[in-house]
Parts: sequence; C-alpha cells; structure tokens
Amino acid sequence: MSDIITLTTDFGTNDAYVASMKGVILSLNPKVQIVDICHNISPQSISQAAFVLDTVYPLFPGKTIHIVVVDPGVGTERQAIVLRTPVADFVAPDNGVLSYVIELFCDEKMEEKGVVKAKLNREIEAVTVTNKRFLRSPVSNTFHGRDIFAPVAAHLSRGEDPFEMGKSIGDPTSIKIPIPRQNSDALIGQVIRMDHFGNLITNIGRKDLLLFLGASLPVIKIGGLVIKGLRKTYSDAKEEELLALIGSSDSLEIAVNLGSACDRMKLALEDIVGMEVQVGKMG
Amino acid sequence: MSDIITLTTDFGTNDAYVASMKGVILSLNPKVQIVDICHNISPQSISQAAFVLDTVYPLFPGKTIHIVVVDPGVGTERQAIVLRTPVADFVAPDNGVLSYVIELFCDEKMEEKGVVKAKLNREIEAVTVTNKRFLRSPVSNTFHGRDIFAPVAAHLSRGEDPFEMGKSIGDPTSIKIPIPRQNSDALIGQVIRMDHFGNLITNIGRKDLLLFLGASLPVIKIGGLVIKGLRKTYSDAKEEELLALIGSSDSLEIAVNLGSACDRMKLALEDIVGMEVQVGKMG
Amino acid sequence: MSDIITLTTDFGTNDAYVASMKGVILSLNPKVQIVDICHNISPQSISQAAFVLDTVYPLFPGKTIHIVVVDPGVGTERQAIVLRTPVADFVAPDNGVLSYVIELFCDEKMEEKGVVKAKLNREIEAVTVTNKRFLRSPVSNTFHGRDIFAPVAAHLSRGEDPFEMGKSIGDPTSIKIPIPRQNSDALIGQVIRMDHFGNLITNIGRKDLLLFLGASLPVIKIGGLVIKGLRKTYSDAKEEELLALIGSSDSLEIAVNLGSACDRMKLALEDIVGMEVQVGKMG
Repeated sequence: MSDIITLTTDFGTNDAYVASMKGVILSLNPKVQIVDICHNISPQSISQAAFVLDTVYPLFPGKTIHIVVVDPGVGTERQAIVLRTPVADFVAPDNGVLSYVIELFCDEKMEEKGVVKAKLNREIEAVTVTNKRFLRSPVSNTFHGRDIFAPVAAHLSRGEDPFEMGKSIGDPTSIKIPIPRQNSDALIGQVIRMDHFGNLITNIGRKDLLLFLGASLPVIKIGGLVIKGLRKTYSDAKEEELLALIGSSDSLEIAVNLGSACDRMKLALEDIVGMEVQVGKMG
Repeated sequence: MSDIITLTTDFGTNDAYVASMKGVILSLNPKVQIVDICHNISPQSISQAAFVLDTVYPLFPGKTIHIVVVDPGVGTERQAIVLRTPVADFVAPDNGVLSYVIELFCDEKMEEKGVVKAKLNREIEAVTVTNKRFLRSPVSNTFHGRDIFAPVAAHLSRGEDPFEMGKSIGDPTSIKIPIPRQNSDALIGQVIRMDHFGNLITNIGRKDLLLFLGASLPVIKIGGLVIKGLRKTYSDAKEEELLALIGSSDSLEIAVNLGSACDRMKLALEDIVGMEVQVGKMG
Repeated sequence: MSDIITLTTDFGTNDAYVASMKGVILSLNPKVQIVDICHNISPQSISQAAFVLDTVYPLFPGKTIHIVVVDPGVGTERQAIVLRTPVADFVAPDNGVLSYVIELFCDEKMEEKGVVKAKLNREIEAVTVTNKRFLRSPVSNTFHGRDIFAPVAAHLSRGEDPFEMGKSIGDPTSIKIPIPRQNSDALIGQVIRMDHFGNLITNIGRKDLLLFLGASLPVIKIGGLVIKGLRKTYSDAKEEELLALIGSSDSLEIAVNLGSACDRMKLALEDIVGMEVQVGKMG
C-alpha cells in the first residue's frame, strides 16, 4: 500500500499525456496522491531521467512508488519492470532509467551485445510485467505510460503483489554511469546536468573531491576557463563571477553568481553535458 | 459529489492565474483533488482545448468535474455552462470548448449567424450559470476562471445541484469538428494537433482508416512527402526515418523515430495544424 | 495545523528542485495538500515573486502555509523567516519576497544601509528560524528550499509553534513597492508585470484611478502610444486593437484584444516591467 505515486517523464506540458496517466491512476485508486517530479526530461534521454530521479527519490516517504517514462523503445521487446527496493518501488521501462537505483543494489555488471546488465543482490527484486490483469486493455503500441506504467503503479499502490504481475528477473538493464577518473595530479570528471539557473552539475562527488584535495585548494579547468578555490555559496563570489562549489546534490558544481554558467561558457546545452572538468591542486 | 476537479486552460504557467482558481476551489472544498490537464493551450484556441480535453477526460473516474477555460469572449454575453453527462460534469464558457463531448450527445446541429448550435439528446443536460450564489462577488470582467468557473465547479463537487445554478438549455455552442472525407481513391483528412515530440496527430481514426484500406497498404501524402505503409511503433522505423502509425489517440499519426516530424516538415506550428493528409492505397 | 502548503519559486520546471521540496514536506506530513503557485518567477527576482504571491494568497483558505523561495542570498547571513498573519502563514527568506503581505501589517518603514526594514504592528508575528530541530540535517549552503523552508512549513502544517523555531523579530526586510504619483493633470504609475497573454499590469489601482478621473474619461500614454477611454473587457475592442481596462488584479491593465500588448510595444520583457504609464483626462 502506498499513498504517493510520482511521475518523471519526457512528455512536456503542452499535451494531455501526463494527465492521461493521472486519470488512469485515479480511476484505479482515487485516494493516492500524485506528485510530478519532472516532465521536461529531454525527449528520449534515458541518462537525464536516471540522474534527475536519483536526486529526488530518496527525499520521498518510504513506500512511495516512482514511475519513470522515458521510453524510446516503446512497443518493442523491451520489458516493463517493477523494482521493489527497501526504500521505494519503481515502475519503468527496462532501459536504464533506473540505473542509479540499480547501482546501489548491484553486485556486478556485465555487457552483452552493447547492453549493460546489472546483477542484482538480494536486497531488491525486479519483476517484468506481463500479466494483463494489471494493464489497460487494449495496450497501445506507443503509449505505455498510460496503458502499462500508470495502471501497474496504481495496482501497487492498492497493495497488489508485484510478483503477481510477471516474472522475477535478476539482471535489469543499466546504462554506463560516468565515473570520474584520477591521475597523479588531477581528478577528471564531467558535467552531467545543467539546471534551470545555468549551473553545471558534475559527477565529482564531495567525498572524492575532498579526499583528492586533502589540504590543498582546487584549480578547476572547464572549457578553457580556470576557477581557483571553492566557495561555500553563490553569493560568496562577486556578481557575474564564475565560481565552483559543492552544490545541493553533494557534488562539484560550476556556477555564476546572479548569472548563468551556461551562458558564460557560450556553449549550447548539448555541448555542455558531457564536458570535461579537471580538478588540480593549487600551488 | 465529486473528489476530483481537472483544469484545462490557456493560462500558461508564468502567472498565478491557475493557482488563483485552485485557491478559490480549495476555499470552497478543501477535500477535493485538483488535477492539471494542460495550461499551455495556445492562447484563445478553442479548437485545441476541445481536442486536448477529448483525449483525456474519458480516462478519469466517473463524476470527475472538468473545468475548461479558453475564453476569448470573457466578459461578453457568451454564457457560462455546466454540462452534466453520464460520465462526468463539465464547466466552461459556452463557446465550443466542449464540442467533442457535446458531439457524443447531439442529435443534430444547426448554424445560426455563423455559430453552430448542437441539439442535445436526453442523455445530458446543459445549464447556463446565472445564480450569483454560486459565483465570487464581485465577478470581474476579465477573469471568469477565478470568479465563475472555479466556484461553480467547487459547488458541484460539494454536491450542489446544477439546476439551481441557472437555466437549462438544449442547444450549447459547438465548433465545426473537422471530419475526413473520402473519394474513390483517397481518404483525405488533416493534422489536428502537433505534440511535444513533434508527432502530427490527424483526424483520420483507426476504424475509418482500416475500413478504407481493406487489405491494401496505405500510401500517405503530407506536405509534399510520401510515406508508405503503417508501422506498429516508432522504433519500427530507422532512426530519423519518417513513418506513419496508429497513435495513442487511436488515429493516424505521422512521426519520426527518435526525432520530430514537425522539424522534418520544416514548417511553423501554425502551418502544420490544418495541413492536409491524403491516404491512398498502394499498388 | 494546516491542510495546504503552497509553493512559489524561481526554480523552473526542468529540474527536480520543486519535487525535492515536495518530497521533504510529504515525508514530514503525508496528509498535506501541496499547491504550486508559480515556479517560473524570473531567476532571483524578489519583486516579481512578491507581486505574484500578492495576487493569489488571499484566495486560499485561512491557515494555508505559503512558501516562497526566490533567494539570491542563500547561504549568506540573510535569515529564514516565518510570518504568522491572521489569514495565513508564510515561510521565506527575509529578503523582501513577502513585502506586500508585510505592507498590510506595517506601521512605518526605515531604511538602514540600503535595506528597508518594516516595523510590524501587533497583528502579525515574525520569527527567524534557527532551531535545527525543524531543519534537514545537514543544511546545504545552496538549497534552503529543500533544507529549511520545506521542513519548516511541514512542521507548521503539523501544528508546531513558530515561536519554538527561533527568535521573534519586529522588523523584517521589505522592498520598495512602486507607488503611483499624481500631479495636477496626470496620474503616473508603471508596469509591474507582463502576463502570459502579453497583458501589461500596472500599479495604478482601480480606486486611485477612479478617484483621479472623476467624471472624465482617461487618456493613457505608454511607450509613445496613446489609448483613449477604458473598456470593460478585452473583446470590447476590435481584434488586435490596443486597449486599457481594469484587470483581474483590480488595477489598470494595457492589453490587445486577441493579441499581445507586449508584442505591440515591440519591447523586450526587461524593458516593459518598470515602464512609465501616464493617465491624463480627456478633453
């Protein structure tokens, strides 16, 4: 049983696609509370959806059900899965959108024909949904958000058993999560997200950064620009000054006080995500 | 009595107009659940609002109350109406935004001075709202969403009788819903909607299409381009390939796998909606 | 105790920042209803947030808790405050985003080192939040929406006493609210907001306008254009005609029927807000 279902999609907000899912959910469980996480994931961007979900699901109450629908393979043989973890349930296509969650419960990964499969440990269960009793009828070929993911989540919220829904699997699909590498004098990561304010969020976590730096101050190189030192907050820099800090997702972030780091870099969004960030030591 | 009120408007999301309506509703019925359908209807586009509502209202629980506020005639003599149908209640200006709903319960239509009036059958009731007891006071001339539609819906959700609200009418306003026509060798429809992914949704329904095609495969002409055959889902086509399929609204849809059909057509949005789509038979 | 918490931020809708706040709130009070006011306040625009909030909070049920997070000084010494008024509670940075609310309960204002401080009267109470029991732990330097404002509001909604949260203060920060001035033959105000439809909302309130005009009709000058008379509603003007009326926020508004006054002025948004509006008398 669950009181809350969240939605993360690339559906945008110009159509009624999100509302269609809500209608289906509320028809099955009018008492559930539905919370929008984000509907502006870039179309078909599995990695973006995976990252955004990761920043937010741990903040929700236990037993929340999170639906993620970024689904370029809708209507093909890719499976729909339910992931039951100790902290929450997840309902999504088995295409890697749950990679960060899976990462936490995964003993090892294997690559088969270009697809990464994660070997789950015993703390979580994954089920591929096949039982038509839990789906809308008929299931369309192009809108599984409405016809599969929404009704499955609604049934879970009513206390239905995920193991009634299909077959348990031990190796859901994952994407390769970019991990920083370290050489003798630098920690090298990348930008994994630009936010609404133009802040650039990197994959260099606070712990790794502090461990690498020790007592030194950082010299950060990104896109031909150099930032020295770490600020505590945006307004520790001068207005319009480029700065680096540990951001709210607990990783290295590049920002401009009262401005946009993205605009400062003069680069298009598609060039910013994936951009290399090098951290060296001062002096 | 109803637990759910939905909102469809052209108010956008930069202002507090939508929230104003929610405040009014919750002040009258704090227990009701409010669901956003869409607030990005093109300003003043009655036909767009009518279509978007039509794709989603049947998915909501019975007795849901749907408010639609796309209202170029706000403050004029156009009426506010409540439509009570067997499946849901609707609250909107009487300007055609409920045309698809009305279409289902309409015996015939008449045109009077350029305005189409639908003759309702006995299954539904329409009431023009005039009783001030159900309105905010004073009613502004420019924001009936807040002052009329929101409080009326809230009162309905509390179980108030729509027939207390004003006068029953039998002929609400409708717009002309574009219907495909057929000649000896082609079924000719039009694009009625472009979605967030750039998919072009036509008014050629699945049943009509299959009836016309019989055992033949289709040859689809749109904007100087030709598409042969029907796919089951987007990824049945190659990346960036133009394709046609039966979309999630159960009608012919033109799309590009992992891309945007709209971008492919190199046309502005205002040129795409209304564009002719011709379906012929192959060979 | 409160059933409703509202959110007004400049977070946009591309990230999960808003949802992070919702997760934190629902973890502390799963029964509360969360309503979005607006998340598209221009980044860091305190005056815009203050105005938008002002148009909507009086419409909500009594005891609603309104969170506002437009917070250029996050992580600095600016305080977080709770404002308890007879009609609602407010939770926000002490930077002026609550200026219109404070204005109603303020005996006088003083300027100290460029910061305006409002002397509150006895009808409301302000508390600066410092008690860690009501915050997330640890509190980040850059995301107080998640770590301070959301949990504080959630605790208030559960009936916690604001005076347990920190120190009572009598002089919260305000911004200078632009007030129209009047000379012998004109009332001179400014545009304070452009809405989604391109309507220009001014700070010239209905009462002041009517008092100034007496029995005369107005001649309104804005950006080199002249509008004569006042309409009751948009469609009292011809299609695409520029017009003036008393808008839904009960102040003078410049609009174009079935069009955008902003487009008509051919000016960028940043030039429109603050633009002078002069009202003279006809004849």
